[in-house]
Amino acid sequence: MTITREDCLALDARDPLAGLRGRFALPDNVIYLDGNSLGALPRHVPSRMRTVVEDEWGAGLIRSWNDAGWIEAAHRTAEKIARLIGAGVDEVIVADSTSVNLFKLLVAAMRLRAGRDLLLTSIGNFPTDAYIAQGAADLLGAELRFVEPDMSSVVAALGSRVAVLAMTHVDYRTGRILSMHEITAAAHAAGALMLWDLSHSAGALEVDLDDASVDLAVGCGYKYLNGGPGAPAYAYVARRLIDQVRQPLSGWFGHAEPFAFAADYVSAPGIDRMQCGTPPMLSLAALESALEVFDDVSVAALRAKSMALSDLFIRLADETLEGLGVTVESPRDASLRGSQVSLKHVDGYAIVQALIANGVIGDFRAPDILRFGLTPLYVRFVDVFDAVHAIGSVIRRGEWNQPRFLWRKTVT
Amino acid sequence: MTITREDCLALDARDPLAGLRGRFALPDNVIYLDGNSLGALPRHVPSRMRTVVEDEWGAGLIRSWNDAGWIEAAHRTAEKIARLIGAGVDEVIVADSTSVNLFKLLVAAMRLRAGRDLLLTSIGNFPTDAYIAQGAADLLGAELRFVEPDMSSVVAALGSRVAVLAMTHVDYRTGRILSMHEITAAAHAAGALMLWDLSHSAGALEVDLDDASVDLAVGCGYKYLNGGPGAPAYAYVARRLIDQVRQPLSGWFGHAEPFAFAADYVSAPGIDRMQCGTPPMLSLAALESALEVFDDVSVAALRAKSMALSDLFIRLADETLEGLGVTVESPRDASLRGSQVSLKHVDGYAIVQALIANGVIGDFRAPDILRFGLTPLYVRFVDVFDAVHAIGSVIRRGEWNQPRFLWRKTVT
Repeated sequence: MTITREDCLALDARDPLAGLRGRFALPDNVIYLDGNSLGALPRHVPSRMRTVVEDEWGAGLIRSWNDAGWIEAAHRTAEKIARLIGAGVDEVIVADSTSVNLFKLLVAAMRLRAGRDLLLTSIGNFPTDAYIAQGAADLLGAELRFVEPDMSSVVAALGSRVAVLAMTHVDYRTGRILSMHEITAAAHAAGALMLWDLSHSAGALEVDLDDASVDLAVGCGYKYLNGGPGAPAYAYVARRLIDQVRQPLSGWFGHAEPFAFAADYVSAPGIDRMQCGTPPMLSLAALESALEVFDDVSVAALRAKSMALSDLFIRLADETLEGLGVTVESPRDASLRGSQVSLKHVDGYAIVQALIANGVIGDFRAPDILRFGLTPLYVRFVDVFDAVHAIGSVIRRGEWNQPRFLWRKTVT
Repeated sequence: MTITREDCLALDARDPLAGLRGRFALPDNVIYLDGNSLGALPRHVPSRMRTVVEDEWGAGLIRSWNDAGWIEAAHRTAEKIARLIGAGVDEVIVADSTSVNLFKLLVAAMRLRAGRDLLLTSIGNFPTDAYIAQGAADLLGAELRFVEPDMSSVVAALGSRVAVLAMTHVDYRTGRILSMHEITAAAHAAGALMLWDLSHSAGALEVDLDDASVDLAVGCGYKYLNGGPGAPAYAYVARRLIDQVRQPLSGWFGHAEPFAFAADYVSAPGIDRMQCGTPPMLSLAALESALEVFDDVSVAALRAKSMALSDLFIRLADETLEGLGVTVESPRDASLRGSQVSLKHVDGYAIVQALIANGVIGDFRAPDILRFGLTPLYVRFVDVFDAVHAIGSVIRRGEWNQPRFLWRKTVT
């Protein structure tokens, strides 16, 4: 029996998280399935931004570093994130970008494992992660190796030369979840440190860094955390390592006494040492404010809805996209799948553009992936129904096969 | 003949730049002399921020990277800064923080002068600059040396081992301007690269990087450029060097084809390679918007007013603060003085706090500097009069000598 739109409306009607969508200012006539690239705007954030701009910056001026608590914003924001990733509040700090934090932690890891000269990461890791690993390895005279992200390949590649294994928890193309516990244990068994990038998992599925004994982690503020375009990122260092970590971007915000204006760098005790320069307060304030959406929300409940959404997406794709040259690239086992469904089509780029023109916003990832993020905070079951049917319509009617959709992309 | 308040009002009445103050949303009952730490809010920025938050992020969502031109914001912003620092638009990019950009450029400089193992910077350089230099030298196995920032000391310290000389154009404590042309020429004569930090000069006085043949520069977006708390910073690389520069923070925004999601890092042609991760768009949008204040303003005119303001400040200090234990720490020759006047008093910290309580906002820099920034865009001559008289009153009446002002500082 095929799934009807009414079935999906019924699913929404009994969704215990349905009310969360009201916390977001989503535009009309859009089905937004790209929250894994840029999260939607929480409805309360504009008011907070007016306050930070007009009252705190405008009227408070320099006094707001103390009086409005800007100086502690990176900590307060990190506390909200810590809960989502199974970390202690003393293990997480918000600073810089994911790329910059990854660089800090890779260099710190190589120093913690001095004598080991190999940095291991996965084939198909998020591109900027691979680029930063190349930059760090190059600078340190270390060797960078890429390994397929399956257990047997990883275990075979680990060895006494590997200082750190750096992987991304959820594959950005396929949405496949890697086993954080098993891979971390394998790295540790080989004496290596384990670093995870949580950019495509935190906020949409359970992450438990402490429980998995993860050493280091980074993650993005603007995808499932909804912190706004280019929101600051976060870094995690396990409590047992924090006081040994030496990161190279030794700016004043990571100094033990930033306002002493001392001549020599002395790293702050604890996780503060991962900070570098003055944080971009307006962007940081948006992230801090946006995270309030999660305050009363259980990640387990989000995960349950996310799996139901993506199960529905795949079932609808199977039912309605047959014979259209589309294949499902995400794992069919929901327990192995992040909060997205990826399809594959040789004309994926043009199809995604045509879908956007029809108000269904997913994204394209080269060479042929159509990616649909299913943020459980605000995506409805009926959105999934409408989106999959729109995909079918666009392909069937050949809508994508028009010059304006076949232009070479600049940005997708 | 002593200067009266009426004299200062008359100076304001005939100040050709007096109208610029109306471009800023300054609070009532405050004399703001800390624009060298956090510039004031331009009046038009809140409206721009509402647009970027509500329309571009909220309604446009991921589409705004293209449709709202976010992807080019770092370039557009850099173009506005280029004009203020005597650089070509192809030589400047906005990215990250001053500290992070300094790290990138110091490492790039050491690579450009491979075979030289010494990094030279000045005693009393801005603390985070010294910390970052320590971090970079440590990572590269280079030696870091500190030199007094006078010509003869610098010339004596330069030699065949020095890869790069890194200095700050205007001393943050005293406001002394270093000779960019002479010091750059000395570095070049020794075969070293020259890097300037413009954080305390750009936007308040003339900087001509191209004319001085400077190699590398960084600067801050939130001081005289008024970009908002923690605004993104900028980096400059001379045109002749850009295509040789290899910076270690090789994130995807510096990739030749960021949206190809290729496995290997290939640095972008030109200045784009200095970018790393996704920029914090809300903070970047504020900076871009704030810079419009400068669009029709001549830096030479700003500099002329700035010198007049600081001349007035010093003359008033001489006239009214005698016998109060205060000395002027800034150069008395206006041509050697940035857009600030620094006083020295053994109880500087408590006095600055008491002044702030009286609505006169300067800042304190350890151990004993009272620092007053005179942003020519919005500080009036009468503000200088009122501020210097307030300093005298606070000290004379012993207002600072109260327990609440003598608390040990947390942040100043």
